[in-house]
Amino acid sequence: MSSAQKTAQACMTIEQFVAQSTGRWRSMRSGHSLAFQQFEEVLSEVTIEKISREDSVVKELLESSLVNQYNLDTISSPFKMEWCAESDWEPDDPSEVSSGSCIIVPFAKDIFSGTLIRSVGYAEAEAAISEYKFSNDGTFTLTTNYEQSIAEEKIWFVSENVRCRSSVLRTSAGSGVLQTSFASEVRRINA
Amino acid sequence: MSSAQKTAQACMTIEQFVAQSTGRWRSMRSGHSLAFQQFEEVLSEVTIEKISREDSVVKELLESSLVNQYNLDTISSPFKMEWCAESDWEPDDPSEVSSGSCIIVPFAKDIFSGTLIRSVGYAEAEAAISEYKFSNDGTFTLTTNYEQSIAEEKIWFVSENVRCRSSVLRTSAGSGVLQTSFASEVRRINA
Repeated sequence: MSSAQKTAQACMTIEQFVAQSTGRWRSMRSGHSLAFQQFEEVLSEVTIEKISREDSVVKELLESSLVNQYNLDTISSPFKMEWCAESDWEPDDPSEVSSGSCIIVPFAKDIFSGTLIRSVGYAEAEAAISEYKFSNDGTFTLTTNYEQSIAEEKIWFVSENVRCRSSVLRTSAGSGVLQTSFASEVRRINA
Repeated sequence: MSSAQKTAQACMTIEQFVAQSTGRWRSMRSGHSLAFQQFEEVLSEVTIEKISREDSVVKELLESSLVNQYNLDTISSPFKMEWCAESDWEPDDPSEVSSGSCIIVPFAKDIFSGTLIRSVGYAEAEAAISEYKFSNDGTFTLTTNYEQSIAEEKIWFVSENVRCRSSVLRTSAGSGVLQTSFASEVRRINA
């Protein structure tokens, strides 16, 4: 077993997770609409970079969010994520955003879990507050309650340069699962 | 949170996992070929049924495998899995098998982990011995060493009637990831 695989298996902290996520990723993403049995395929590039907790965009996000209840001393590894679709095979779907960026600020509760504030939510275009936790196989799970839906995302590294990301979107009202997605992300070493 | 969601979050045993998996599932599966950035999409039906440990197919499988080192008293919930593709959008790919079945016999080591013998492997068409374990979020992870490759599959329930299944296939020689896949499976209640 290579050291990269050992790293992927080990327990993670949010700092290690953000450090390992930093870089440019080539993403293949499949969406599954369960009710209609429709597939969606998107190729995109995702860039993740750490930002300083003193950065003005962090302060703006915290000021615009209801974060009075969080201890600013527990901010861990804030980062910026940008994405740009290279191909979107369903161009008529207005819910598909082909590029964008968001600021993400984690607040660690303990080494396994915490809260994460995003300037743009995953399922709805508003600032979102999520709960995160790491399972004992190193998988990062993020749960977000939106107004109409609940999203659960999982991210795990299969090697130092390959990570997988799944999401499940369900209705807030019940346990009905609306759609799922899965992305395979390969780090761009050069270019 | 509904009771189904609570169940999905809880730690699992192999007996509970097989019991919850039993039934007919409508599967949407996406494959990602990372080197060629190609997508594959398959709709299929998967049927899972428990079988008796006294069933002749179980005995045949154990006799044909090198299972001397396993204690037959630790056999837990053997089952049969059948699949049938309803549509295969890459009919020219000879590696795609449109239907088949296999017998799966788990040997529990402890409540979290064990060994699993399959009459047909996932990545190569030969009997396969896998190691399984459950993580503390209830995800079932199966690792199989084939002659040329290593497959890691994860299966988790997002509700009582929806489960997700991901796989990563890497070369035995290194940590190169060849392909990934993701399936969303919805239980067929009637019909």
